[in-house]
Amino acid sequence: MKKLSTEAYKGTRDFYPEDMRLQNYIFATMKSVVEKYGYEEYTASILEESDLYRAKTGEEIVNEQTYSFIDRGGRDVTLRPEMTPTVARMVANKRKTLFFPLRWYSIPNCFRYERPQRGRLREFWQLNVDLLGTDSLFADAEIIKIAYDIMDAFGADPKTFVIKVNNRKLMNEFFKEILKLDEEKSYRLSKLIDKKSKVSEKEFTEESESLVGNQRELLDAFLKATTLDELPEIISDSKNLKELRDVMNTLNSQGVKNCIFDPTLMRGFDYYTGIVFEVFDLNPLNNRSLFGGGRYDNLVDLFGVEPVPAVGFGMGDLTMQTYLETYNLTPKLETKIDVIICMLDKQIITQAVELATVLRKNGVTVVIDYTDKKMGQKIKNADKKQIPFVVIYGPEEVARNEVTIKMMKTGKQKTIPQNQITNYFKGYN
Amino acid sequence: MKKLSTEAYKGTRDFYPEDMRLQNYIFATMKSVVEKYGYEEYTASILEESDLYRAKTGEEIVNEQTYSFIDRGGRDVTLRPEMTPTVARMVANKRKTLFFPLRWYSIPNCFRYERPQRGRLREFWQLNVDLLGTDSLFADAEIIKIAYDIMDAFGADPKTFVIKVNNRKLMNEFFKEILKLDEEKSYRLSKLIDKKSKVSEKEFTEESESLVGNQRELLDAFLKATTLDELPEIISDSKNLKELRDVMNTLNSQGVKNCIFDPTLMRGFDYYTGIVFEVFDLNPLNNRSLFGGGRYDNLVDLFGVEPVPAVGFGMGDLTMQTYLETYNLTPKLETKIDVIICMLDKQIITQAVELATVLRKNGVTVVIDYTDKKMGQKIKNADKKQIPFVVIYGPEEVARNEVTIKMMKTGKQKTIPQNQITNYFKGYN
Repeated sequence: MKKLSTEAYKGTRDFYPEDMRLQNYIFATMKSVVEKYGYEEYTASILEESDLYRAKTGEEIVNEQTYSFIDRGGRDVTLRPEMTPTVARMVANKRKTLFFPLRWYSIPNCFRYERPQRGRLREFWQLNVDLLGTDSLFADAEIIKIAYDIMDAFGADPKTFVIKVNNRKLMNEFFKEILKLDEEKSYRLSKLIDKKSKVSEKEFTEESESLVGNQRELLDAFLKATTLDELPEIISDSKNLKELRDVMNTLNSQGVKNCIFDPTLMRGFDYYTGIVFEVFDLNPLNNRSLFGGGRYDNLVDLFGVEPVPAVGFGMGDLTMQTYLETYNLTPKLETKIDVIICMLDKQIITQAVELATVLRKNGVTVVIDYTDKKMGQKIKNADKKQIPFVVIYGPEEVARNEVTIKMMKTGKQKTIPQNQITNYFKGYN
Repeated sequence: MKKLSTEAYKGTRDFYPEDMRLQNYIFATMKSVVEKYGYEEYTASILEESDLYRAKTGEEIVNEQTYSFIDRGGRDVTLRPEMTPTVARMVANKRKTLFFPLRWYSIPNCFRYERPQRGRLREFWQLNVDLLGTDSLFADAEIIKIAYDIMDAFGADPKTFVIKVNNRKLMNEFFKEILKLDEEKSYRLSKLIDKKSKVSEKEFTEESESLVGNQRELLDAFLKATTLDELPEIISDSKNLKELRDVMNTLNSQGVKNCIFDPTLMRGFDYYTGIVFEVFDLNPLNNRSLFGGGRYDNLVDLFGVEPVPAVGFGMGDLTMQTYLETYNLTPKLETKIDVIICMLDKQIITQAVELATVLRKNGVTVVIDYTDKKMGQKIKNADKKQIPFVVIYGPEEVARNEVTIKMMKTGKQKTIPQNQITNYFKGYN
């Protein structure tokens, strides 16, 4: 028979227990923050009908990066590349019975067919946090504050990152009202600005000139602004600019001091309608976007129901893992096993299981060693597995109602009455 | 634009927060048991190369029920229909560096293309618990005991279910040594017995006769046994029978009184090699297999490494959910939100956020209401969301360093100094 490969499918990861502990730490940290804000968990199948992504996910992803196929019943289906279309679908489905506003979160896995590289794989998990059913600017501020609080919960120093913000409405106003561009040119200009940092200055200049003609200086002045006050005078009365200022001021008053305006921040997805933001790593060796989000007020009405204003963000597990490694913030995560019971004679298995049962009922994690190895070897194995306590247990201990406990850190052994064992471990939990 | 469907893909579920709470309760209950036994969580991608399932998963699933497709790079891939091949692959991959025995668990989602019906969908989650690297019968007993303990943790009365056990080795011995069947006929007979309860007696008699000829009476006598002692005399000295007896005795001594021998229990998967078991619901309206598992000692060597003996089981979320509903064991799971802060004037947003921050730091889950609704409406909404406390907060409260708390259950309001609010909620947590 042909030898089977032991490798995970390209661009995906196997999570061995040590990897899983890190992943669980990352998820638990995310959850602890969002749940304190009253966000409730939801999820859905990774498999969705492909139509869901055709409307708003963005061409590159749908045409080149989806995992799509025809099921055995002829349905065109896709492994979700992102969660936002799903949350919009779910909200639309129960539009009439849900109590708004909704504070929802999920940590789904997503698939994109990309060239695997450091910090980017074909399968990733992504925390999605969404506040649906309110167009309040405080909601925008809350979402950004949660992003900030999660960074804080991971131990991130706010000096190591900035939160860049912009407003799609401000950009649209500038493109259409000031530069007088039509719909199509506005769209092309927004895409050009989105990739500004990836193209040469010459290419950007040429392409933008072809779109805005002799207004290129005004465009340059706009894009050069590093604060709202530096924007061209002509747009300084805009209510969309005021919105952005209000959100930034609210965040500032809540202790978020690293939030900055960036007029070149567009965000790739086509569904954003208002405030957009991105958390940027300032590390010169790793200067890049960590994650981001924004307001998307028109996504739910694609399903033919009354609009539901919404704001949210997505935070990938791989990006956060890389960030934690870069800043040495990854905690040491050890096995949760407290005790291993090593029998001197298997005749006492019933008593060993009884002992384990009592300990487990008292919150102690216990493993029983069934091997035929010698006691010395059993203790060595316990050490390799980093189990802090070994219980040495044989017919004599059983006869005397005693147990012998070896504390691995000190190597010291102690024999105590069996009915005191729960108390013994209570001291260490 | 065409109106998009709001339905989940056929045979999959949307988990709204209330569904998710139940799913999380089921997962947490499973985890609490297995983790106390020292099992460590692992996982892998849902996408695997299709070859992984061709060897041992069983023809019906691979030919008719997999979600398989060709990726953009020409690889033949499958959404996992079960987790066991993946755990075998992962163990084979690190065969030389892992410390055996391994106690591993995972709760992956799996896909099978089947006709959706009550308790069976196209996507399901399944707890997988495996003890790898030991052929000890105590390992078999531990795995079955864990299955029993999980039922117990769900509140199941042991009178409502039985654990049926059998030994594949005993069956093989009977087929080959006693009935003298060749490999192919043994396999066909095992498949026939596996579907015994689904075919008519006549069909079973005819087909079994075509396989065993004039030994049909011996076969019938074997299959009729309801205890090990009732098996035909000719096999009573079998060491495989003794194995099964030892496992059953071990379980009995550990308090598992509902474990019974069933010679017709085969389990569908081809990879089982020893003890197999199934937990059966005894409810006359729902008399069926809930879940099961067994020993599979030859799966890891498919990958060309030294064999790793293994035993484990898989427990589906849908089956357990149906079971809990049948016996009225589903707990009432409410929102985790403790408090909603309702502002009398949005000017105090900064102070409201500060108040929320203090409470969150002290473990209280707090939501802020940003709506422009009147206070009465805000309180009604809090009631609909079943939030137990409303904090009424306005400029006067801010000026006096006070907060007004309304306890929804009693309807009573109380005004207290702001610095006492944490203590106030400590009493309710």
